[in-house]
This record gives sequence, C-alpha cells and structure tokens, in this order.
Amino acid sequence: MKHVIITVGREFGSGGRAVAEQLAEKLGIKCYDKELLTLTAKKSGFSEKFIQENEEKKTDSFLFNLVMGISSQTSNLTGTQPLSVQLYMEEFKIIKETAEKESCVFVGRCADYVLRDRKDVLSVFIMAPMKSRITRIMDKYGIGEKEASEKILKTDKERASYYNYYSDRKWGKANTYQLCIDTSEIGIDGAVEMIQSYLEKWK
Amino acid sequence: MKHVIITVGREFGSGGRAVAEQLAEKLGIKCYDKELLTLTAKKSGFSEKFIQENEEKKTDSFLFNLVMGISSQTSNLTGTQPLSVQLYMEEFKIIKETAEKESCVFVGRCADYVLRDRKDVLSVFIMAPMKSRITRIMDKYGIGEKEASEKILKTDKERASYYNYYSDRKWGKANTYQLCIDTSEIGIDGAVEMIQSYLEKWK
Repeated sequence: MKHVIITVGREFGSGGRAVAEQLAEKLGIKCYDKELLTLTAKKSGFSEKFIQENEEKKTDSFLFNLVMGISSQTSNLTGTQPLSVQLYMEEFKIIKETAEKESCVFVGRCADYVLRDRKDVLSVFIMAPMKSRITRIMDKYGIGEKEASEKILKTDKERASYYNYYSDRKWGKANTYQLCIDTSEIGIDGAVEMIQSYLEKWK
Repeated sequence: MKHVIITVGREFGSGGRAVAEQLAEKLGIKCYDKELLTLTAKKSGFSEKFIQENEEKKTDSFLFNLVMGISSQTSNLTGTQPLSVQLYMEEFKIIKETAEKESCVFVGRCADYVLRDRKDVLSVFIMAPMKSRITRIMDKYGIGEKEASEKILKTDKERASYYNYYSDRKWGKANTYQLCIDTSEIGIDGAVEMIQSYLEKWK
C-alpha cells in the first residue's frame, strides 16, 4: 500500500471511532485517537489527565486562563500562548511528525486541517441521525435518553467549536471532507468498506 | 431491484447531474432533472420558460410578486400563495407522485426533504473543491475563471437559499444527507460506483 493518511471527523455517537479503528486494522496501520494523548503528554510535559480534560475543547476563555495562571492580556503582551493553544500546537506537531513517518488513521483533532498541504490525506466524516446516536450512547454509557441527548449536543458543540476555531473550515459541513458517511443504515462494517472502496478508486 | 429513490443534491460544477444521470442509467431507472420542468409545466399551466427562470430559486420577494401581479400583502390577505410557493407546491406534488410510481433519481429541488417520510430514499450530496469546479464550469460554458467563479457562488447561494427556505434542514451540511462524495479525485464513475456500493449494503 502507498503511504496514506486517513483523518476521521465524527459526530458523537455515530460510531466514528469504531470505523477508524476497524479501518486501521483492515489496512494494517495504526489508529491514533487516545494514543495522541500519551504522545502529547510524553513530549509536552502536560499530564495525560490535563490533556484529556482540555484537548479537542476550545477552553482558552479569560476565566480559564486566569484560573490556570495565564491572563489573556498577559499572554498577548508577553507572547505566551494560552494553555489550550500550547496544547493544540503540541498535538499539531505530533500529528505532522507521525503522518510523515507512517501511514495511519487520525481520529478528530483537526488532523485533516493540520495535514491540509499533504496530497496523501483522505478526509472522512462519520455521522448518524440523532435517534440512532442516542440509542448508541444510552447503550454505551448505560444512561437515559435525556442525558444521552445532552451529552451528544454538548460534545458535538465542543468539537465544532474547537475545529472552527483552529481551522478556516466548518466542522460537519459536507465540503470540508472528501467523503461523509451515515452509519445508521450500513453499520460500522459498511462504512469501513466504503472508505476502502474510495481509497482503491483514488489510487 | 427493490423500489428505491435516490435524491442528488449537488454543488454547482461538481458533476452532480452527471453522477445522477449515469447512476440512473446503470440502475435502469429514470433521472428527473429538467424533466421535472416539463411535467410541472404540463400540470400547472406555468410555461416551461417561466418555471426554468424561477424554480430552485427563492424569488418571492415583494418586488417580484408586485411585478408578477401579486403583492405579498394581497397574497396574505386572500390566502393566495406567492408564485414561487405555488411552483414549489406543484413540483412537490409531482415529486411525490413520481416516487410513489417508480424507482428513480431526482436531482436537487428539495426532493430528499419532500420525500422525508419514505423509507426507500437514499439522499446523496455531490461536491468538489472550488478549484476543480471552476475548471469544469470554464470548460462547460467556455467562460473565464472570474465569471466561472461568480456563477458557482451565485448558483450555490440560490440553491442553499431555496433548500433552507423550504426545508428544516441545511443545504450542504453533511448530516442532511446519508452520503456525501467529492468527485475531484475519483471522478463521476467513481462516485456512481460508491453510491451503488452504498445501495447494495443498504438492502
């Protein structure tokens, strides 16, 4: 197989991570999702817990930075970046280095935007209707319908906000990606096969 | 083949109509694009020229209706609909009747929304990066880059405005559709094969 990077954006509860993992396994390459946390922690000195709580969220509010000891004014005056931006920059570097080194799948984290200048990147978005996502999240976390629905809306909002802040594209807009697939009718397997089929035509 | 309807939304210059036509031919079913104009003209009494100039555009402005002899105020007071709404209602009926009667492909015209209660509808969106669309439109209409770019922006704006006005969904948003495909890398043939592949998994 030629060197190829697949980036997977996903609506919360659509099965996007499962698609990414299964695709990576079928292609015999690595899937980077939570693994990026560990790599970022190792290289940056941030703790894994801190990264988990703050990555893929746009948390550089005045209050947040104040609590963390960096005011926006100070950071602007001194050239120091807010922590969320430092965290993004660290992940950004790791995504670029990893993509250079090996074929792989990245889940979320603006990877499609970070790697926009490469010619070997297939950018995919995985989605599903709200009803199907609620069922999936209720099953996965053992929670009720209302809680599942709120969790989905909150997480999607955070992902969109993060993506739209760090890129000049729109999260969840069809033409941000090369291929967008609804998993609710064809399942995880079906979506993986569709991506493989796109890759074959693309070569 | 089971009864199936495929609706194709498309960015201007992405080759969406070509995808729809080729798909219909491969499946041995009809593709309704301009054909809807003729059907609507026959049933409504509007001329084909009038329909062509006004359909898939949200043209029910006060000025437009004034020129056409229907002021918004009059239409609201008497219950008469603006002409663009009448035209939409007529196309709406024809799309519903046709979908009931036969498997087919519909290009644009909110068909996915009109048919939202059916379980046999696959809703597709065809797109391509601006650069690739400009090249296509320059070739097709024999026009320069600037004119092609303006034509694309204007047409997409009209389509989005029409779709967003008559539906409660967003034109061009990934989760409005079940499958969104960028044709620039895999071509018209590739996109057609992807849709066929989705249909096979779906059954």
